[in-house]
Amino acid sequence: MMSWPPVYDEEYMPPPDSPYWFKKLETMPQKERDELILKKLKAQLKYCWENSEFYRKKWVKANFHPDDLWNLNDLKKIPIVTKEEFRRDQMENPPYGTNLCISVDDIYTIHGTSGTTGRPAVFAIGYDDVRRIANTHARVMWGFGLRPKDTIMIAAFFSLYLGSWGALWGSQRLKAKSFPFGAGAPGQTRSAVHWAKQLKPTALYGTMSYILHFAEVAYEEGIDPQTDFNFRIIFTSGEPGAALPSMKEKIKKIFNATLIDLGSTAEMSPWMTNGECSYACGMHLWQDVVYTELVDPKTLEPVEYGEEGVPVYTHLERTSQPFIRFFSYDVSTWINDPCECGRTYPRLPKGIYGRIDDVINIRGEKVFPSAIQEALMSVKGYGGEHQIIITRERALDKIILKVEYDKDVEKQASINSLVLKDLEEAFKNAIRVKCGVNAEVILVPPKTLNRTQLKAKRIIDNRELYEELNKLRSHH
Amino acid sequence: MMSWPPVYDEEYMPPPDSPYWFKKLETMPQKERDELILKKLKAQLKYCWENSEFYRKKWVKANFHPDDLWNLNDLKKIPIVTKEEFRRDQMENPPYGTNLCISVDDIYTIHGTSGTTGRPAVFAIGYDDVRRIANTHARVMWGFGLRPKDTIMIAAFFSLYLGSWGALWGSQRLKAKSFPFGAGAPGQTRSAVHWAKQLKPTALYGTMSYILHFAEVAYEEGIDPQTDFNFRIIFTSGEPGAALPSMKEKIKKIFNATLIDLGSTAEMSPWMTNGECSYACGMHLWQDVVYTELVDPKTLEPVEYGEEGVPVYTHLERTSQPFIRFFSYDVSTWINDPCECGRTYPRLPKGIYGRIDDVINIRGEKVFPSAIQEALMSVKGYGGEHQIIITRERALDKIILKVEYDKDVEKQASINSLVLKDLEEAFKNAIRVKCGVNAEVILVPPKTLNRTQLKAKRIIDNRELYEELNKLRSHH
Repeated sequence: MMSWPPVYDEEYMPPPDSPYWFKKLETMPQKERDELILKKLKAQLKYCWENSEFYRKKWVKANFHPDDLWNLNDLKKIPIVTKEEFRRDQMENPPYGTNLCISVDDIYTIHGTSGTTGRPAVFAIGYDDVRRIANTHARVMWGFGLRPKDTIMIAAFFSLYLGSWGALWGSQRLKAKSFPFGAGAPGQTRSAVHWAKQLKPTALYGTMSYILHFAEVAYEEGIDPQTDFNFRIIFTSGEPGAALPSMKEKIKKIFNATLIDLGSTAEMSPWMTNGECSYACGMHLWQDVVYTELVDPKTLEPVEYGEEGVPVYTHLERTSQPFIRFFSYDVSTWINDPCECGRTYPRLPKGIYGRIDDVINIRGEKVFPSAIQEALMSVKGYGGEHQIIITRERALDKIILKVEYDKDVEKQASINSLVLKDLEEAFKNAIRVKCGVNAEVILVPPKTLNRTQLKAKRIIDNRELYEELNKLRSHH
Repeated sequence: MMSWPPVYDEEYMPPPDSPYWFKKLETMPQKERDELILKKLKAQLKYCWENSEFYRKKWVKANFHPDDLWNLNDLKKIPIVTKEEFRRDQMENPPYGTNLCISVDDIYTIHGTSGTTGRPAVFAIGYDDVRRIANTHARVMWGFGLRPKDTIMIAAFFSLYLGSWGALWGSQRLKAKSFPFGAGAPGQTRSAVHWAKQLKPTALYGTMSYILHFAEVAYEEGIDPQTDFNFRIIFTSGEPGAALPSMKEKIKKIFNATLIDLGSTAEMSPWMTNGECSYACGMHLWQDVVYTELVDPKTLEPVEYGEEGVPVYTHLERTSQPFIRFFSYDVSTWINDPCECGRTYPRLPKGIYGRIDDVINIRGEKVFPSAIQEALMSVKGYGGEHQIIITRERALDKIILKVEYDKDVEKQASINSLVLKDLEEAFKNAIRVKCGVNAEVILVPPKTLNRTQLKAKRIIDNRELYEELNKLRSHH
């Protein structure tokens, strides 16, 4: 008999020279792992049936009962669940909703979505789940090379956001030195770069946009990230981009550090179950903790390895607010090639590179904002930030890219203005070749565009505005 | 034999109906407690001698050895230590200084001072100390009425600042529901008040200024703190003010909550060892965890109960960066009257109401900014914020107070402008009676003055500027 939910030994540490936290689990044949996953899944489903009014109602309606699950393929029988559904349930049953499977008194920590639109979602997590999250995060962190001797600077906003807290819990379980610096307050980054210079932490966590902002502020303060900092590993989550080879090179060049891509969603904490190993060649799916499928967004059928789909996540060891077949709306491609690290998990070689709802449909071509970012970054002279404006011209979609050039270009252009013309062409060409669309490029000087300390918002879509204006015009 | 350092039972909870966490310790006769303190102190000093180069050097120079301590009076033999000394030591021995008594590898979490001037101080805290801090904070929190069933919203900046983290560790150990919302980012307070309305936490932690700001933002958002929130207890630290009866009344009126005053200094974490009980009649000195003396700032001799002095703190159970006779530069008055709660600790009935270095010396009269605040708050029509400008007029010191009036006054004044004249007189009179000085009062409309999310800075002293200007003038 397997005992569920698992209780991790808080004193456990892998052998110091092992690249694995749990060698056997991480390197076992997939078939063997699937048997283990099936057992955990059955226990998780039974738990949900018994403790979650939310799932019981949903499953009864869908004519599903946990006993109907005989193998992992049967997962298809279970209806997917969305963020929206969860939020609506909380609105109708405030504040925690009907999927809180522990008693209110057993809630340990409360977080949530920022809820910029409408009512935010509330995440109420029990102590045992926090311990399981911490243990899994420590395990993945060990997998990408962090060790107890590391000093880990967490440069992310400590509030509702679970990115910062998840990184902190992992660091603490790893028995590393945590430096929970936070982010988000005015002037904080300036202070952060001086602390990083003084204290010499060996690892840095933040969103991808913020890491780049961090470097820029360092330069402004006369600090050279290469020599004044001591970051060996920079790990990030919550935004596409960190999987791009161009971004990994850039981070290596700026910080002399390895860039590690991580992250599923806040709901799915432990969110590091999408997580790169020290070879940094795409996020492994740590399937024995969170079971991840990639599905076709229309048919909801699993896609083959090598194909693109939407990650659908299922908790295997969550007792407070578990998610079963959580439809992420993200887009990725998965493969099952062997990894040099020896782990036998499938991988997302290009990370999560978009969201279904933010794919830009431009005259029939589908373009992800991350592809535009990659194309721009591949051009020498890119200044580090850009804005995507989607508009309509004579009823035809059009992309306008405001792109910053860098300081070198600025210097050259002051001597020879043709430099800017050439750069503009280079950007246009890169977009044409890599994204298959034509874009208008407007160059802007270094640091013109806003930086964010949270997730970057780079897209302005004013096509609807255009339509409205046209309607208004036609009335006159 | 007493074992030192103490290890607390993490599963311990007091009987639910007990007002005490450790009844015996909290209510024992002082003489008996002093014997216990002496034992702990001897162990702490021995530990420092053996593990801290910082103290060994300092004490050898002062001709002190831990064996010289026979009773608590002998504390006088130990030289005081200042924040500045500690910072200088870290500057010379970066980054942790020679008072880190644990191995670097055993550091668990790193914090610090904000260091607005000069190099900030680094606080490196070991895991065992974090557990001891958490246990003592839970004990004091229990003492002022928090229980495991509470939901505790922590509305303070999570970064270097130890206030937020200390409150969080205590909440977690108390097995309450923690809601670590944070503070400091633009727009965060607006979000906070909506969350407080939705989630209905029963307790709120923040700085005194921020709690008032929180109420103001609630009103702006159409939220009534009396009826839309559910705070039973509001606890605060880091700023004078929370001990004032006028402030306690104000908080009762706004939130229908009891205001609890807490806090020694970040260095001394567990900083709740200055902490009010549920009778909220002045902070108890929880002497068996941190031993606190009140001394005359000139002679450094202890002052009698009933008198004013500077708190000097000594850790009794810290293994990472312990402080022995830490001179706080704060000013308070202590008494040893019995408290209705039954605890036998001395008390600071007026809280910490100033700092040696921020007492305003005005034509020979000494005035603390907190006394000015109290005087202004006692006048009906005070709008919640003010600024103290100290200037020089014909070589004589002068206080100018910019004082906000409230919305009621604003309405009345729009009908009858004499209202403002009367209010100005009322403020002047209150300052004259309660502080013994004359001040010029300039009234300003509601919300004219800046609010802070951190500690309020209300004083502008431009006397030196005046001197400089005069010198410059005399050269022409």
